[in-house]
Amino acid sequence: MSTPSCTVSSQSAAAAESNGDAGMGAAVSALPPLPTNSLVSPMLTDLYQITMAYAYWKANRHNECAVFELFFRKNPFAGEYTVFAGLDEVVKHLANFRFSSSDLEYLRNNPGLKHCEPAFFDHYLANLDCSEVKVCALEEGRICFPRIPLIIVEGPLGISQLLETTLLTLVNYPSLIATNAARMVVAARGTGSPISFASLDEGGSPDNRPKKTPKLVEFGLRRAQGADGGFSASRYSYIGGFDATSNVQAGKILGVPIAGTHAHSFVQAHSSLDEARGMTLQDQSGNDVELLGAVLKYRNDVLQGDSWATTNDSELAAFISYASSFPDNFLCLIDTYDTIRSGLRNFIMVSLVLDDLGHKPTGVRLDSGDLAFLSIECDQVFSDLALELDRPFLRDLDIVASNDINESVLHSLNKQGHRITVFGIGTNLVTCQAQPALGCVYKLVELNGKPRIKLSQDIVKVLIPGRKVAYRMYGGKDWPLIDVLVFADESPQPAVGHRILCRHPFVEQKRVAVTAKRVETLHSLVFNKGFVKKQPSLAEAKEHVKEQLKVMRPDILRRVNPAEYKVSVSNDLFNYLHKMWQTETPVVELS
Amino acid sequence: MSTPSCTVSSQSAAAAESNGDAGMGAAVSALPPLPTNSLVSPMLTDLYQITMAYAYWKANRHNECAVFELFFRKNPFAGEYTVFAGLDEVVKHLANFRFSSSDLEYLRNNPGLKHCEPAFFDHYLANLDCSEVKVCALEEGRICFPRIPLIIVEGPLGISQLLETTLLTLVNYPSLIATNAARMVVAARGTGSPISFASLDEGGSPDNRPKKTPKLVEFGLRRAQGADGGFSASRYSYIGGFDATSNVQAGKILGVPIAGTHAHSFVQAHSSLDEARGMTLQDQSGNDVELLGAVLKYRNDVLQGDSWATTNDSELAAFISYASSFPDNFLCLIDTYDTIRSGLRNFIMVSLVLDDLGHKPTGVRLDSGDLAFLSIECDQVFSDLALELDRPFLRDLDIVASNDINESVLHSLNKQGHRITVFGIGTNLVTCQAQPALGCVYKLVELNGKPRIKLSQDIVKVLIPGRKVAYRMYGGKDWPLIDVLVFADESPQPAVGHRILCRHPFVEQKRVAVTAKRVETLHSLVFNKGFVKKQPSLAEAKEHVKEQLKVMRPDILRRVNPAEYKVSVSNDLFNYLHKMWQTETPVVELS
Repeated sequence: MSTPSCTVSSQSAAAAESNGDAGMGAAVSALPPLPTNSLVSPMLTDLYQITMAYAYWKANRHNECAVFELFFRKNPFAGEYTVFAGLDEVVKHLANFRFSSSDLEYLRNNPGLKHCEPAFFDHYLANLDCSEVKVCALEEGRICFPRIPLIIVEGPLGISQLLETTLLTLVNYPSLIATNAARMVVAARGTGSPISFASLDEGGSPDNRPKKTPKLVEFGLRRAQGADGGFSASRYSYIGGFDATSNVQAGKILGVPIAGTHAHSFVQAHSSLDEARGMTLQDQSGNDVELLGAVLKYRNDVLQGDSWATTNDSELAAFISYASSFPDNFLCLIDTYDTIRSGLRNFIMVSLVLDDLGHKPTGVRLDSGDLAFLSIECDQVFSDLALELDRPFLRDLDIVASNDINESVLHSLNKQGHRITVFGIGTNLVTCQAQPALGCVYKLVELNGKPRIKLSQDIVKVLIPGRKVAYRMYGGKDWPLIDVLVFADESPQPAVGHRILCRHPFVEQKRVAVTAKRVETLHSLVFNKGFVKKQPSLAEAKEHVKEQLKVMRPDILRRVNPAEYKVSVSNDLFNYLHKMWQTETPVVELS
Repeated sequence: MSTPSCTVSSQSAAAAESNGDAGMGAAVSALPPLPTNSLVSPMLTDLYQITMAYAYWKANRHNECAVFELFFRKNPFAGEYTVFAGLDEVVKHLANFRFSSSDLEYLRNNPGLKHCEPAFFDHYLANLDCSEVKVCALEEGRICFPRIPLIIVEGPLGISQLLETTLLTLVNYPSLIATNAARMVVAARGTGSPISFASLDEGGSPDNRPKKTPKLVEFGLRRAQGADGGFSASRYSYIGGFDATSNVQAGKILGVPIAGTHAHSFVQAHSSLDEARGMTLQDQSGNDVELLGAVLKYRNDVLQGDSWATTNDSELAAFISYASSFPDNFLCLIDTYDTIRSGLRNFIMVSLVLDDLGHKPTGVRLDSGDLAFLSIECDQVFSDLALELDRPFLRDLDIVASNDINESVLHSLNKQGHRITVFGIGTNLVTCQAQPALGCVYKLVELNGKPRIKLSQDIVKVLIPGRKVAYRMYGGKDWPLIDVLVFADESPQPAVGHRILCRHPFVEQKRVAVTAKRVETLHSLVFNKGFVKKQPSLAEAKEHVKEQLKVMRPDILRRVNPAEYKVSVSNDLFNYLHKMWQTETPVVELS
């Protein structure tokens, strides 16, 4: 039996490295830290990866040279784009891949593996790491499309197979949540592209919009799918464009800005104005001012018309207590009793006192009811009083909304008009309610230098065979025109100013000729023989997403019937694919 | 300002402890280990918990005695029951609750907390733990219903508030996935109750069912929401009734049985019969038998009719290789090329050789196509050949199905009839596609001995105030009749043989008089002053779920229009709730 051994060819690495990463140059870094979640190890995999590895090892084929591609076939959320994320943890996993002795002990004694030869555990798995594996990938935050590999793994068949499940787990949810977040950001405030906000579906008219560009905050930890689901949501929604999270752990470990004020229970924990008695803040001359007295002066003397005096006392006590603790971060949840007649007014009374004392109140939060209507009401009251009382701070207040918001609610709010300046989004963001899984797959495309194909009666499941590289071709104004997959050893490769024929992978008639103003190699080397590419910071990845969204055609980003971004193959690849397809598909005999 | 300090009353613990747990007796155990996921710490919370704790501390109210209930308002999946899970990790969190010095360092420097007094961090948070907190809960695996508290936390206001988000995170997803799993188990094989399988919606006729009780295996790691999502899914779907998981890490850490064979890539990695040449197994006399030769004898001589010779060679090579590695665990994925004409036949040829050599082949896996039809086809071929060739093993083979299965596919398969003996369920199980979040909430129900209410225009959101205990009342045949919530200090409490009036919490006219044959206290003390209740093993919790499902009325478990299980309140509680509700709701002035 021939057993070709896998040595990473320097030739095939060329394309990836031409993308600016000298293989062993400045980018070489120390071993990256362990995966953030200690559950991430070679054991976080499906048993069948290990049984397959054993079968390869037993047949002495474990060192044959394999190329696997990790990709998805369909964009999530009925959309036409996806934000790639999760690479940082993938790289940490690759760098730390090692079965521990307790792992091996467990496997050796598992009933499903009990007849395996001991050498498989003691020699093969015990010494296995990723030193023979080479990985190219899109960079974190890359906007990407179906069939373009997110990650390309090249290495010995055994170890490459063993990476499948863990890599999928580390990419599927991060990319899904980053995409979900990006879509919500686009829905809430557009892309910042010259093509305006209003062109994205239901932008509403300009005078129906909040005065500030809305911010988005992730609030979903409590409803997330496990601690890591919550933590990943905070992390990857930030890359997708969210401004902050409520998750303190994500703030500490990742540096994501954190935000939050108080809950209904805080208001509930108060039952009378007595509880606010004696609380003080200093005025600008350093004198203590008793807050309750000052607030009641506004309630009884200044704002007495229209029954300001009948607001809920417990709520007012809670707000005064909160103000004494957070005079410079005074944001109140105003819907515990009656949003407009109680919460809003109590907030204003306390705010006026804070303003007198030189503090700048932050705003209100709405967590129930008709968010569009209530935000407009609040804004109107703020504007009227700002004029009436000559208190300009009232015009700058934030109006936070946070009840069951999702992408379609955001679009609907835009359409109705609203004055919300901060969206707090929880369950629908973190669990990706609209589609809770991205369907990335990990497929063998080449073995021992020979392209492999997987057939399927379902055309979209047919695999594009061979080791490939991908390019993004740009037109005028630096807008992306098309992505093209090309054999890694094809020549010439796409280049600026050269007209090349790009073909739909499956439909013979669909062809476009492209002459690009800029050509970008999509993959770069991230891991190879001691080289570990330094990953961008969260802020860098976030900025990358933002910059790409700005130059993406709005019809690709829109929610309803978005246009499909073209992903094509070179003419050589098309011909090879179709020849192989024809050869491997048996003619069905009907009789 | 009065600042009642919180001391756990021995009186209130009585009901919980009467459930068989002596407070400081034999059940006292050593400190439980750290939470499984290192991200679980006091920092895995929303920022507003910390700002609220500060406001309580600043007002010197942090030691007031609070009671919080963790509960949900609506069963998931349009169903009428829920399986409670996650308590084990909750208890670990409580026992290990401590802010580290780096946590405090981060918080102290956070912009949102920058004006807080240093003593809050240095004295209060730095010394805070759960030593003053008492927690009662349902036991792991309890079938439960809306409004019955899953967990009751009693302790100082500050620390009790700080537990909210983490407890919700640790309960929401585990309970959701355990419920989803239980529903799928019920759909696939009924409850084991005397009321048969067929009575559950679409049971189909007896001769349309598999010969064995189907097993269910969790396959979802790769699509889970983060590593912990995957790990939690493996753990809690096992409690819900699944038989195994593909997740090796869950096998190692939790002892869940693991299962798995090979993927399409394994078949793809083979390209000709040459790759199977030279592979041997010993016969029962210890002589080496070359597998390929033996298999080809069947292909060419024994099974030659109906073109057995034209099955796919690469696939046959893959199966032979797999058989040589796993002769006693020979389960093949048969749909890579053509399920019936290639995969099934290749499997049979190799199986016959294994049978000759004294091994017992396991079965086939279907991962695409019409699972009902294909399973019946496979079963028919197995039965026919068993007779024709006198090979009884062919009648015992498993037929595993694993493509995009969810609860409604299971019901539909029952209706159509099928011969599937093992269901492998991934994405739809682990992400709970049908409803990816359970909406547990954590609400203050009592403060300083006084019941608290939270009002809402939405009746289902109105809180049932006060410190309560819950009972399940059983009728004849030990079937649960109704759950009832009662004030903890109400007297007499429900007891066997006593007729008590149970009232719908909100609808005045809905009343039932119950005389129970058995009365069960639903909560027990799980954590209090150094007492940490030993949690059941996964197997015990799983058995508990199974036993309860057996005695649950089938109309409550059914998928379409299930009957509602009654959750009621005592007459005293009803009267108190409605009086408080009336008093606290202002009369709206219309003018």
